[in-house]
Amino acid sequence: MSKVITPRAKDYSRWYTDLVIQAQLADYAPVKGCMVIRPHGYALWENIQRTLDAMFKETGHENAYFPLFIPESLLQKEAAHVKGFAPECAVVTRGGGKELEEPLIIRPTSETIIYSMYSKWIRSWRDLPMLLNQWVNVVRWEMRTRLFLRTTEFLWQEGHTAHATEAEAEEETRRMLEIYATFAEDHMAMPVLRGMKTEAERFAGAVRTYSIEAMMQDGKGLQAGTSHNLGQNFARAFDVKFQNKNSQLEYVWSTSWGVSTRLIGALIMQHSDDQGLVLPPRLAPIQIVVVPIFKSGDGVLEAAADLVKEIRTSTPGNGSFERSRVRLDDREGLSPGFKFNEWELRGVPIRIEIGPRDLKAGQVVVATRHDRQKQTVPRAGLAERLPSLLEEAQKSMLERARTHMASRSTPVDSYEDFKKQIDAPGGFLYCHWCGSGECEASVKTETKATIRCIPLDAPEEKGSCIRCGSASDRRVPFAKAY
Amino acid sequence: MSKVITPRAKDYSRWYTDLVIQAQLADYAPVKGCMVIRPHGYALWENIQRTLDAMFKETGHENAYFPLFIPESLLQKEAAHVKGFAPECAVVTRGGGKELEEPLIIRPTSETIIYSMYSKWIRSWRDLPMLLNQWVNVVRWEMRTRLFLRTTEFLWQEGHTAHATEAEAEEETRRMLEIYATFAEDHMAMPVLRGMKTEAERFAGAVRTYSIEAMMQDGKGLQAGTSHNLGQNFARAFDVKFQNKNSQLEYVWSTSWGVSTRLIGALIMQHSDDQGLVLPPRLAPIQIVVVPIFKSGDGVLEAAADLVKEIRTSTPGNGSFERSRVRLDDREGLSPGFKFNEWELRGVPIRIEIGPRDLKAGQVVVATRHDRQKQTVPRAGLAERLPSLLEEAQKSMLERARTHMASRSTPVDSYEDFKKQIDAPGGFLYCHWCGSGECEASVKTETKATIRCIPLDAPEEKGSCIRCGSASDRRVPFAKAY
Repeated sequence: MSKVITPRAKDYSRWYTDLVIQAQLADYAPVKGCMVIRPHGYALWENIQRTLDAMFKETGHENAYFPLFIPESLLQKEAAHVKGFAPECAVVTRGGGKELEEPLIIRPTSETIIYSMYSKWIRSWRDLPMLLNQWVNVVRWEMRTRLFLRTTEFLWQEGHTAHATEAEAEEETRRMLEIYATFAEDHMAMPVLRGMKTEAERFAGAVRTYSIEAMMQDGKGLQAGTSHNLGQNFARAFDVKFQNKNSQLEYVWSTSWGVSTRLIGALIMQHSDDQGLVLPPRLAPIQIVVVPIFKSGDGVLEAAADLVKEIRTSTPGNGSFERSRVRLDDREGLSPGFKFNEWELRGVPIRIEIGPRDLKAGQVVVATRHDRQKQTVPRAGLAERLPSLLEEAQKSMLERARTHMASRSTPVDSYEDFKKQIDAPGGFLYCHWCGSGECEASVKTETKATIRCIPLDAPEEKGSCIRCGSASDRRVPFAKAY
Repeated sequence: MSKVITPRAKDYSRWYTDLVIQAQLADYAPVKGCMVIRPHGYALWENIQRTLDAMFKETGHENAYFPLFIPESLLQKEAAHVKGFAPECAVVTRGGGKELEEPLIIRPTSETIIYSMYSKWIRSWRDLPMLLNQWVNVVRWEMRTRLFLRTTEFLWQEGHTAHATEAEAEEETRRMLEIYATFAEDHMAMPVLRGMKTEAERFAGAVRTYSIEAMMQDGKGLQAGTSHNLGQNFARAFDVKFQNKNSQLEYVWSTSWGVSTRLIGALIMQHSDDQGLVLPPRLAPIQIVVVPIFKSGDGVLEAAADLVKEIRTSTPGNGSFERSRVRLDDREGLSPGFKFNEWELRGVPIRIEIGPRDLKAGQVVVATRHDRQKQTVPRAGLAERLPSLLEEAQKSMLERARTHMASRSTPVDSYEDFKKQIDAPGGFLYCHWCGSGECEASVKTETKATIRCIPLDAPEEKGSCIRCGSASDRRVPFAKAY
């Protein structure tokens, strides 16, 4: 608590790491590139999981669990897939004291093991669609890691669905993209672009990859979730066929989609400030904290406890407000200032302070974390007003993030301007692009900027490619990214 | 569905495997010793998780996530621990295309990695108790595996707590044992013995290991959960010290405790029958299924849909009854008999049948899975009666299991009788034991029976050891076990 968080303006990257460590979201593990997710960080993940899981189930998906280990020979069955993932694999070569006959890959993603099972389970159109998801750990060997954003092991969910028709698979791919976008905006208060990845950025083995793309406070992009239309690529590689209603054998059409603990990194970089975390109320592990400023016998502690009890019992738990997410800070031997700083650091959306004078005057002080405002309000009726205060904070965080994204989205028409602006002010530079991988690669080599996605709602507009001058039909957002 | 389940009387072991596969709880994976948990099995695990997780949180525990990989050198720090686990380890030796300098062990359990972090986090008595839990996958290389009961990779929760005093650690160890016992009895409808493991069966690195022990239908024992008092063993090995209130440095006292997907195997073997799964209502993924026996236009399908809607909306979701766990089976082209068999196979506690005659007579047929009884009851007021019908089924399953356990718990006083009875009728043979590891080992070698535990409530009784004749103060249950 006594340690200082580097201000964003001084060193944004250092600020991020300081914050993750100081707010006790995560810590470095004794294994290179791995992290420990501490209770405050894991509680965030549980809230993310719970919300998304309900959205998946509402749309007919079921959870399952496939093994951690993938035999090397299975991974090699889909050519593009193995090419994409082999360099990142962790490999088990010993088990039970013996060298293994066939090395086992720790799953970097589970298409291959899942399709080996689908080939066994899917026989007829009656077995389709198969709509499965799993919440698991995966491993991708990373050279340069960063807490939450890029770690060798991470937690994620991966959905894997199989369908009878190409149209259904495409519909599913887009449905899940939209679920991710809704979750990002409504729960994380993080506006996103919905779009298609360029060929260069496509998932290894996919026909089309869609993504949601967010913009962090420093103007950099962050891919927050992906949804892949896999066509019949994996069905062919694993011989997953079904008998259609006309008794003909066909390969299934499939999709996969995922989000990971990376979302926690996005959440932090989207909203937090130099004082610490700023969490959207819907995902905050603790939504309200009551801090009494008390001495023994002055009745303040009792009044604070009564208020907490009242909030927990009389407030309708509507929306995303939950009674159990209210806490009383009755610790002794710590100053009010210390406590205020600690709860600010941890991102609790609403802090209620009660001192002896407040008690006499029938009032309390309500401090909102996202705008760091304090107001004195009557104690009477407070509990009933809290859910709407939380919802207002949630909304205003989304609006602030939207304003930020809009203010740093700029059309740029010459490569010279592009190179000047890509570092500062940065942000999303909307430029014409001819559609060639060569131009995309040159821009990346020359400026480190990538095309975040081809937005689904990009308006048609004639122009010429920022890099080569050839004809272009729409602008795409270029940015540096995490 | 067309395949037959081997009857229990013919081959209990084969019956179990047939059932797991046929009811689509799990399937064999393409990796030796690993399994795929299918949606019906995973939904059971989710219900187990949700219930236990709430019990852990109510008693002050928080969830976290520690890495999958443990550097070999960390595992070796606690001598007894590494001796116990090293032979079962899976080892990663390659990562990112290179040989690793230090091999990484896939966690078989996480004490070592967790204590390496505790040594960093714990400084003062204010940091204690530290009450953490994680829900993760672990790997123990097994030679002879069995779906759910013993697999190379399995899912579990592992609690790891650190305390300021020996008494607190012992209290925690016993508290968690009691939580497991309560869960087994109240939710799984599975009676258990609470007891201490003998020295031979103790967790590698523990001072004392407690367990809950169940009895399957074939009379064999099954260890269903363990809770370990680790004393200061891991604190010493990992140098986890805290400053107490007198400013002295002390090693922390610690515990660990866990249950795994093995519980699903226990659940199956405790209650199921030759027709398929029998699931306790509190854990059943689907609690009620409504099967209309209909032809187009006879109004039965509509009446069934109305009933489902009524159950979902008008029934108070009290106790463990949940509205979302009610299903309408409106599939066409499948006979009622086929559907009845399928829902019996899948263990749905209550099946409601409605045909055209029932519709006219204002009645339905209610079939309860655990006792395979059918009764015709009035349609009016049915929805309100269902929660108590489910609770009755839950209770009667526990009573039946208790009766079974009692009927197969037998005092045995001579080793000759012991050897005659241990295979048939089997069950728990309560015998005097001198307390020596030699006698325990001899009995195991000679009969394959083990001491399940030393029950906490075992009455004092003077006697002589079944194996060597030395003095004994109490009887302990011997049994063959899974």
